Amino acid sequence: MASSNKKKIFNDPVYGFITIPSDLIYDLVEHRYFQRLRRIKQLGMSEFVYPGALHTRFHHALGAMHLMGQAIQALRGKGHLITEAECEAVQAAILLHDLGHGPFSHVLEHTILNGVHHESLSLLLMQDINWEFGGALTLAIRMFEGTYERPFFHQLISSQLDMDRMDYLNRDCFYTGVAEGTIGADRIIKMLDLAKDAGQKDRLVVEAKGILSIENFLNARRLMYWQVYLHKTSLCAEAMLIQLIRRARFLISRGTAVPASPALTLFLSRAVTLADFESHPEYLQAFSELDDYDIWSAIKIWSRHPDRVLADLCARMLERKLFKIILSDQPLAEEVILDVQQQLVRQNIPSDELSYFIHSGIATNAAYLSSQEARTDNILIKFKNGRVADIADASDLPGIKALANIVRRYYVCWARNPMNNDQ
Amino acid sequence: MASSNKKKIFNDPVYGFITIPSDLIYDLVEHRYFQRLRRIKQLGMSEFVYPGALHTRFHHALGAMHLMGQAIQALRGKGHLITEAECEAVQAAILLHDLGHGPFSHVLEHTILNGVHHESLSLLLMQDINWEFGGALTLAIRMFEGTYERPFFHQLISSQLDMDRMDYLNRDCFYTGVAEGTIGADRIIKMLDLAKDAGQKDRLVVEAKGILSIENFLNARRLMYWQVYLHKTSLCAEAMLIQLIRRARFLISRGTAVPASPALTLFLSRAVTLADFESHPEYLQAFSELDDYDIWSAIKIWSRHPDRVLADLCARMLERKLFKIILSDQPLAEEVILDVQQQLVRQNIPSDELSYFIHSGIATNAAYLSSQEARTDNILIKFKNGRVADIADASDLPGIKALANIVRRYYVCWARNPMNNDQ
Amino acid sequence: MASSNKKKIFNDPVYGFITIPSDLIYDLVEHRYFQRLRRIKQLGMSEFVYPGALHTRFHHALGAMHLMGQAIQALRGKGHLITEAECEAVQAAILLHDLGHGPFSHVLEHTILNGVHHESLSLLLMQDINWEFGGALTLAIRMFEGTYERPFFHQLISSQLDMDRMDYLNRDCFYTGVAEGTIGADRIIKMLDLAKDAGQKDRLVVEAKGILSIENFLNARRLMYWQVYLHKTSLCAEAMLIQLIRRARFLISRGTAVPASPALTLFLSRAVTLADFESHPEYLQAFSELDDYDIWSAIKIWSRHPDRVLADLCARMLERKLFKIILSDQPLAEEVILDVQQQLVRQNIPSDELSYFIHSGIATNAAYLSSQEARTDNILIKFKNGRVADIADASDLPGIKALANIVRRYYVCWARNPMNNDQ
Amino acid sequence: MASSNKKKIFNDPVYGFITIPSDLIYDLVEHRYFQRLRRIKQLGMSEFVYPGALHTRFHHALGAMHLMGQAIQALRGKGHLITEAECEAVQAAILLHDLGHGPFSHVLEHTILNGVHHESLSLLLMQDINWEFGGALTLAIRMFEGTYERPFFHQLISSQLDMDRMDYLNRDCFYTGVAEGTIGADRIIKMLDLAKDAGQKDRLVVEAKGILSIENFLNARRLMYWQVYLHKTSLCAEAMLIQLIRRARFLISRGTAVPASPALTLFLSRAVTLADFESHPEYLQAFSELDDYDIWSAIKIWSRHPDRVLADLCARMLERKLFKIILSDQPLAEEVILDVQQQLVRQNIPSDELSYFIHSGIATNAAYLSSQEARTDNILIKFKNGRVADIADASDLPGIKALANIVRRYYVCWARNPMNNDQ
Repeated sequence: MASSNKKKIFNDPVYGFITIPSDLIYDLVEHRYFQRLRRIKQLGMSEFVYPGALHTRFHHALGAMHLMGQAIQALRGKGHLITEAECEAVQAAILLHDLGHGPFSHVLEHTILNGVHHESLSLLLMQDINWEFGGALTLAIRMFEGTYERPFFHQLISSQLDMDRMDYLNRDCFYTGVAEGTIGADRIIKMLDLAKDAGQKDRLVVEAKGILSIENFLNARRLMYWQVYLHKTSLCAEAMLIQLIRRARFLISRGTAVPASPALTLFLSRAVTLADFESHPEYLQAFSELDDYDIWSAIKIWSRHPDRVLADLCARMLERKLFKIILSDQPLAEEVILDVQQQLVRQNIPSDELSYFIHSGIATNAAYLSSQEARTDNILIKFKNGRVADIADASDLPGIKALANIVRRYYVCWARNPMNNDQ
Repeated sequence: MASSNKKKIFNDPVYGFITIPSDLIYDLVEHRYFQRLRRIKQLGMSEFVYPGALHTRFHHALGAMHLMGQAIQALRGKGHLITEAECEAVQAAILLHDLGHGPFSHVLEHTILNGVHHESLSLLLMQDINWEFGGALTLAIRMFEGTYERPFFHQLISSQLDMDRMDYLNRDCFYTGVAEGTIGADRIIKMLDLAKDAGQKDRLVVEAKGILSIENFLNARRLMYWQVYLHKTSLCAEAMLIQLIRRARFLISRGTAVPASPALTLFLSRAVTLADFESHPEYLQAFSELDDYDIWSAIKIWSRHPDRVLADLCARMLERKLFKIILSDQPLAEEVILDVQQQLVRQNIPSDELSYFIHSGIATNAAYLSSQEARTDNILIKFKNGRVADIADASDLPGIKALANIVRRYYVCWARNPMNNDQ
Repeated sequence: MASSNKKKIFNDPVYGFITIPSDLIYDLVEHRYFQRLRRIKQLGMSEFVYPGALHTRFHHALGAMHLMGQAIQALRGKGHLITEAECEAVQAAILLHDLGHGPFSHVLEHTILNGVHHESLSLLLMQDINWEFGGALTLAIRMFEGTYERPFFHQLISSQLDMDRMDYLNRDCFYTGVAEGTIGADRIIKMLDLAKDAGQKDRLVVEAKGILSIENFLNARRLMYWQVYLHKTSLCAEAMLIQLIRRARFLISRGTAVPASPALTLFLSRAVTLADFESHPEYLQAFSELDDYDIWSAIKIWSRHPDRVLADLCARMLERKLFKIILSDQPLAEEVILDVQQQLVRQNIPSDELSYFIHSGIATNAAYLSSQEARTDNILIKFKNGRVADIADASDLPGIKALANIVRRYYVCWARNPMNNDQ
Repeated sequence: MASSNKKKIFNDPVYGFITIPSDLIYDLVEHRYFQRLRRIKQLGMSEFVYPGALHTRFHHALGAMHLMGQAIQALRGKGHLITEAECEAVQAAILLHDLGHGPFSHVLEHTILNGVHHESLSLLLMQDINWEFGGALTLAIRMFEGTYERPFFHQLISSQLDMDRMDYLNRDCFYTGVAEGTIGADRIIKMLDLAKDAGQKDRLVVEAKGILSIENFLNARRLMYWQVYLHKTSLCAEAMLIQLIRRARFLISRGTAVPASPALTLFLSRAVTLADFESHPEYLQAFSELDDYDIWSAIKIWSRHPDRVLADLCARMLERKLFKIILSDQPLAEEVILDVQQQLVRQNIPSDELSYFIHSGIATNAAYLSSQEARTDNILIKFKNGRVADIADASDLPGIKALANIVRRYYVCWARNPMNNDQ
């Protein structure tokens, strides 16, 4: 196929246009593993709060690749040598960094999957494509894993100032309509630079005149956490999703028929571990077919299931009759939980089904993890005199240090009103 | 339930915030018929061209209601008396005007349904809710049908300058990222006024100083037609959808098992007419359960179907291996069609299956239908001296008249490359 | 004059459209005191850093009035009774709140004027119009002064969460292009409410769910201070303006002719106090004629003045050959100042002229002044249980308290390169 | 001076950031001829209608240079060889293309200047800088004049699809807030290509898939003409400016003192021709000092002039008491003019002063001048098969041809109310 046909341009409401920079990137975009990301929404259940938040991981990955191109251009503009091969590899790596996300990923990693982290699956899928593409992704994979000798490429892909976050903050605040989350990604990228670390390796740093933009970026990230990612309505919807999946697995374990797509059926029927993925290719294959449609069409069908619990939870989800929630800065007192349980009992929910209609948890958020903990992904500021310091030390604002505190919110959510399942 | 709980505000990237103006509107939004619109994308297959175009009819309907509120405010500001009851009714009517859309509506109206127009279904569903709500929608329904004695309300709901179009042009150009389609909805709404027609009834008119904005609106609409709604890639995807549905129906008619959701199965198994809908409530019920997830999960399952044709079409769709297309201003010469058919034959597609892999049609677009044809939905301009004229006569631009010409594009699309269905 | 002619609409890139709500407001906008604000830029010298920052106090005042209308609508929507007269008065008051600003106000209050605060002049000018308008502004003036019995109106006009700040942050970040300063004014306004204080008077509060937006607002304000209002290049340009005005006054005091507009000449020739303004109407009259054009045309003419100091400073300003600056978190060491003075001496600047080419100062900024200091303009949060607390206490973020610290930057700026005045 | 200091970045609300690409461009931006453009508003009197329209020719020129960089990048991306020297030259040329604009250029070219076209003055000023910069602008000047052997560079600088128009449409619609004028500059630039003309020279063409964007561009341009550039209020303000300048010249010619800046005085006192500019360097020097401040400070001083006519016109301008206007598609009937004159006579305006208070003219606009007139600046479309055609022939829309019609509006404006000059 001629190269010119692969010079594709995507319209993007966030950046205007995204240009596919090379044939390899074009072929990756066309790959069915990547096309699957069209069917996985970036923000899962958040659409129940923000009806515009329907953007997909496909669009996010394209956006992150676009920003990566700008970051490379900025670094080259400051005299740093980056080869064409490196440039293509780091763009390929960021493009594929989310391949391992399943539908409603943050929820399902701990229910459908057995704690398998999405980055491990991304790596397996990248290796799969690499084999198919005759090694064209070898460098990209080394950068992704962090084994390439120039560590700043890994930092651009995965650190507290990576192109992943730049794009998702930009994109999530655009599609939710939460204008206050706006970050100056353009400006931050123009401020990126490299500095030698103790081992004489290039590390990603930000010019000192970008401090305010970094602070704003961290504040925006924190705002998005509480306003969007951990919004109480999303927590409720996710709790319901966790419980209905748990019920479906329970029914299956008991031999009750629970119709679902082949891929979803597989993951409901057994707890697949990372070792399973590595040893049995059919699991990875099934995973590569799993998307939001499997979950939603199951919810739709299950809303008519003979099992009252499963049907009720699914019908609530479909009609957006969500759980109610209590949130607190302190661990919830036992009497609060007891009171909630009493409410459920009064709805005549049998005691062995109670646990499906109540869910408690902790939402945590640290906007920035500083270098006190000897991290390698912290944000470094480079001053005019050459000094390099962690942003938490470089800023005149005590608040940056404060952002590093882990904030916890304790919650319990439950089905407040009985639902007439016969309607 | 206390009124205060129903003062909901939605974030909307397009307008900032949308406020739910009354308890009735709140209850309509909560209704499961309306919640279903969350699961129906406004632009169907356009996401294959514009990855951001994932917005739903739910969000569109809220937006149209929001603009309706502004239109009423503008008209009241010019001294026209509009009661609270009228205001609520016209907002309810625009909110519900799209209830009758199914998934991929423009395609499926002519495949799944037997030519039943979505507006007829909207009306049936509104009547259903009206019965449930004890008559609260009676006035809204009269406005929707055009039987209310003040015809301008119907024009605000459905005419060539209705709030439906205002919102969908705004919203579609926002989410596709086609900035050139931007219209001045705010400005047009501020220019709305009423004028008596021959029968002394108030008709919707636009102040003369809004002419340029109307021209721009019509030009933008035309641009969106060719750039988005009738984009060649969308035409291809829609053609594939038409053919795969046709194949599924064929297989079912032959007794082959074709798994699908109950609602979709029902509509695949028989051709439901408007009369059927009116006489058999179960059809309307099934329709109210049908959404994008039914179609996409069917496509996913069918991509593994034993029937080669169905499986091939579905697999292409999933992996975005779309048909190729030839477009022309002139009817396509017979040899073009023959040549395409030869290509298919060379792929060893049996002759009785050929018709599923080739699709021809006409895309038509008239940006404005002027009053020459004695329409009642045309756009009228009101001059300072009181004269009222059709926009096509009022504009100094011969182009407005030109916009009234129906433009036709003839196309044929087909499966250019064989697809390896075994992969 | 007929009312309908006064229904003016302004295009505003920030809000779309601004509607003039009443005849009184229309007449105020038409008044020459208000029209003068067209000729006073909001951000003075910032255009040297941000070339788009040319917006005027005229546009800002219209914007603040627009937001005030939205705030009143929000409060009424929560059941608070606000009469039409109050609504018009508070909009009139915010519209006129900046009448007393002169050109480059923050600089010239301390050079041209003798420390007369702009709010005192706004009040004098409002009283002048009130006399002319037969008392139509009496209520507006009481609200502006804070003597009206419902203190929340004064808070909407002047407090740490007033419509003045809402608009200027919005507008300044829009026109400078500093996207990171974006605030959620819409959202904050929708969260406004009233709560009784100890004296049973209504005070402005923010619903608890608006805490994040308030934090974002304070962070954005702090960012704008350092990035825009106290930008080092603006500090330099302002220092040059201070010195050239000082030189002009010195020359006049010595009897040297320094041509300028009549109004500017008056203020250069003597130090007018607030008492002078109150007792001699001609001063207020002259002030009402003073605008950016007086300053800039003086700079242009003076750039050819026989006095070498005046001419040099003005020529530098015209050609943007600005002073250089050193900024520090600590008071500058004496040797730094001495070194700078030596540089000037080496340029052969005579010792009695040295002080015009060097300027030192302190830039200070506290993003929020909390109630510890018993202020009446602090931001109060109202929780669901009715509790009201200062934002600094209500937020889970130590950073808000941190924002209350006054940050100081010490600087010295000076003419680094000699300027060839003969060119 | 070290190169790194010249890597300046400007914030631009329209494009985000504008980067200065080279040292030469940096030095041009710093040049006092270019800095003067900071003091010349792009849209002259339009701020009376659109209070946000205060952007300067300085900002516009930077924006056009920015787009030029993108255009060069797009052409290189399609395989066209463009050297670094050519790239810098064409950016320098577009940066300086407006140097020859004076204040309120379209008005003053025909009043202050003797019909000297601004492009001639731009050329003189560029030659001046070229001499100062040792020939660094020689290639840029050849491109600007159209004598360089690759004519497409001239087309990028000056044609019906040049970067000048791209930027000013973008920028004017942004700052006026007329959102409907939005053009897809990004998209058009990505569609630019080159094609050989009859003489085997590269000409600028647009890919066929960009036709809709070009149509939108032309429609937007037409909209901006009527909505902004030829807005009736602007026509009135310009008429007043013409008349007050005419009066000032008349008074000077009679020996009456009319104070003004030296540069303005020079141009008021004699009619300078292009030949004068070429032969007497002091005229060019004076011109390079003339800006909006000269005009506005003159208007302010003249509003107190003993000459009643001059004072009255200037006071009206200052307080925005503008002329009234009648516009018509047809030449105005003599009785209309007579009626207006009668109104003036009734205000006791002496007959020899009448002509200063009434102004008639024709506003004309052709959005596109097609190749029928054998122009070299027309817009060419390149089809996939290699055919190249004028946009007016390539479009399916008769409206594009219609846009080529010259539309004329006839108007008369006059001082409707007497002004009390004593206030």
